[in-house]
Amino acid sequence: MKAARFHQRGDVRIEDVPEPSIRPGAVKIKIEWCGICGTDLHEYLHGPIFCPTPHEPHPLTQETSPVVLGHEFVGTLVELGADVKGLNLGERVTVEPRIVCGTCPPCTAGHHNSCQQAATIGLAGGGGGLAEYVVVDRHLVYSLGDLPSQVGALVEPLSVAHHAVGRAGMAPGDNAVVFGAGPIGLLITAVLKATGAAHVTVVEPSAARRQRALGAGADVILDPRNENVDERIQELTGGTGADVAFECAGANAALASCVNAVKARGTVVNVAIWGHPATLDMLPIVLKEVRLVGTICYAGDHQPVIDLLRKGKLSVEQFITKRIDLDDLIAEGFQALVDGTGDQVKILVRPR
Amino acid sequence: MKAARFHQRGDVRIEDVPEPSIRPGAVKIKIEWCGICGTDLHEYLHGPIFCPTPHEPHPLTQETSPVVLGHEFVGTLVELGADVKGLNLGERVTVEPRIVCGTCPPCTAGHHNSCQQAATIGLAGGGGGLAEYVVVDRHLVYSLGDLPSQVGALVEPLSVAHHAVGRAGMAPGDNAVVFGAGPIGLLITAVLKATGAAHVTVVEPSAARRQRALGAGADVILDPRNENVDERIQELTGGTGADVAFECAGANAALASCVNAVKARGTVVNVAIWGHPATLDMLPIVLKEVRLVGTICYAGDHQPVIDLLRKGKLSVEQFITKRIDLDDLIAEGFQALVDGTGDQVKILVRPR
Ligand SMILES: [Zn+2]
Ligand SMILES: [Zn+2]
Repeated sequence: MKAARFHQRGDVRIEDVPEPSIRPGAVKIKIEWCGICGTDLHEYLHGPIFCPTPHEPHPLTQETSPVVLGHEFVGTLVELGADVKGLNLGERVTVEPRIVCGTCPPCTAGHHNSCQQAATIGLAGGGGGLAEYVVVDRHLVYSLGDLPSQVGALVEPLSVAHHAVGRAGMAPGDNAVVFGAGPIGLLITAVLKATGAAHVTVVEPSAARRQRALGAGADVILDPRNENVDERIQELTGGTGADVAFECAGANAALASCVNAVKARGTVVNVAIWGHPATLDMLPIVLKEVRLVGTICYAGDHQPVIDLLRKGKLSVEQFITKRIDLDDLIAEGFQALVDGTGDQVKILVRPR
Repeated sequence: MKAARFHQRGDVRIEDVPEPSIRPGAVKIKIEWCGICGTDLHEYLHGPIFCPTPHEPHPLTQETSPVVLGHEFVGTLVELGADVKGLNLGERVTVEPRIVCGTCPPCTAGHHNSCQQAATIGLAGGGGGLAEYVVVDRHLVYSLGDLPSQVGALVEPLSVAHHAVGRAGMAPGDNAVVFGAGPIGLLITAVLKATGAAHVTVVEPSAARRQRALGAGADVILDPRNENVDERIQELTGGTGADVAFECAGANAALASCVNAVKARGTVVNVAIWGHPATLDMLPIVLKEVRLVGTICYAGDHQPVIDLLRKGKLSVEQFITKRIDLDDLIAEGFQALVDGTGDQVKILVRPR
């Protein structure tokens, strides 16, 4: 079958690989669509990070590079392994693409998203969605019901956003500020509005992304290059400060603005994966007793996201900015994201 | 009366000032003892920080420097203002030395400890405990009951520690690591053991302070210069990580170790007032979904601390390392703290 495989930095190949075989407790999915994640691009440009090296197998998948890429995928069930219950051939599904060890302290405590060995399917082995077929364990599979497949391809990144919002511990009527309107910031904005946030301010320098934030449901959108964000947020919140701020930029200025934005005992959720250590003034954290929390992946978020989508609470087709063939992954996918000025949000790839 | 007044950096004078007059709703206290806080020393060495300048009055006290110092004090009620209820002349009391505006957003939300204008009595005006008398509002006054006065002088710093422990949101049986065994780290250790922490590890480079930590009830004491703290804490917690870590050092290495020390979804309480921006690796905060919280002063902590002391749950005489006269404040107090190698914890001053 055709698949995109990571070999090494700058070397992702569309090539012919053996079709994966069914196994007990697993299902075989014929891929319809797979989104390109920032992580995929990052791996292509700067990896291997989550991908294994050619020499050291990942402890959970036992695979070395090359590995198949793609973890935001939907498809149709074409084969069910022994002992698979509650799913039917022909059903359209999406997948929570995480293999965890089950035995490390976070796993034992039930926090599988912080598993010390976790492998993401489509990065660390176990197949991937940038291919014609994938075989995954049944417990990772979620039925789409009547959701369009292209919408289903957004369930995985939406689950990241849903988990981040959950980590904030918001109360009904709370307001929020989202710093950075890249794909995850936009989806957080959409999830915030879908789950009852009273007011969402988005801070984003790119004009194209600010326009997307409007579609995502942002009530106010600020350009940090032209406005005093700290002052504007205080104005917007009547001098109280925001209940919650989301750091989706991975930048010192955004993190500082998050801390400045929130009220006394407010919460800052750090969503970004930083490429460098942060420089952070602790004094406002102390004086306002700010709570800064991390968030990673998801933990039971896929089904709630599918439910929100099916109820029409989330409108996410707007975030699909391009549809390409797998053969064009590098030129039309990765390169479009590298060259883009924030005009691309989610590029979907079909395996042909 | 005799009082220690902050004039400017490096200039604290023991001098004669007018005795404060009683006013309605307030009480007059004849000071018995007043502890020297690190803040007092910091103001002497690097101020004015919390003290007003000679030119700009503090918005709540309307005072400019010189101001009387000292906010960890106990004494005897010698005069009761009009409308003062529930207190008797001759009673020994301590004071929550905070004047708040009552109208800013944190105050309105009930978080008076984060008041945007707050004045600490004994730093920002309103009199102070390094004097013969002080007049304070009745609602700030707490009766010591049968507690020894010298123990009562520790209620204020213990309340800071008690509030910090409360911010951690610990469950019964949780364990903790305290980084830095200066006065506040020691008192946090004592409060942790008094309030049911199952196991407390203290990390401290000074030999004198490590010895004090033992008295405070630490179960294990680590020397970061001779031991791999990160590894030892993982060993001590069976590889799970600590439930809570307290940063009482204001140092990048200690903050990093706090983040490394805690379990997935563990809590780091930042207690230190940092003198510089922190440099912080966000990745372990993200991957373990760590919660980093600030803590400042106290909010309803004085009475619980007095109750713990009266029940014999806290033994704090050990932390009183020196008793001096007010006339010797600079030479025997501030200078002893500057010259010390961690041998001094709490120096008490009597006004003579
Ligand atoms: Zn695990
Ligand atoms: Zn206030």
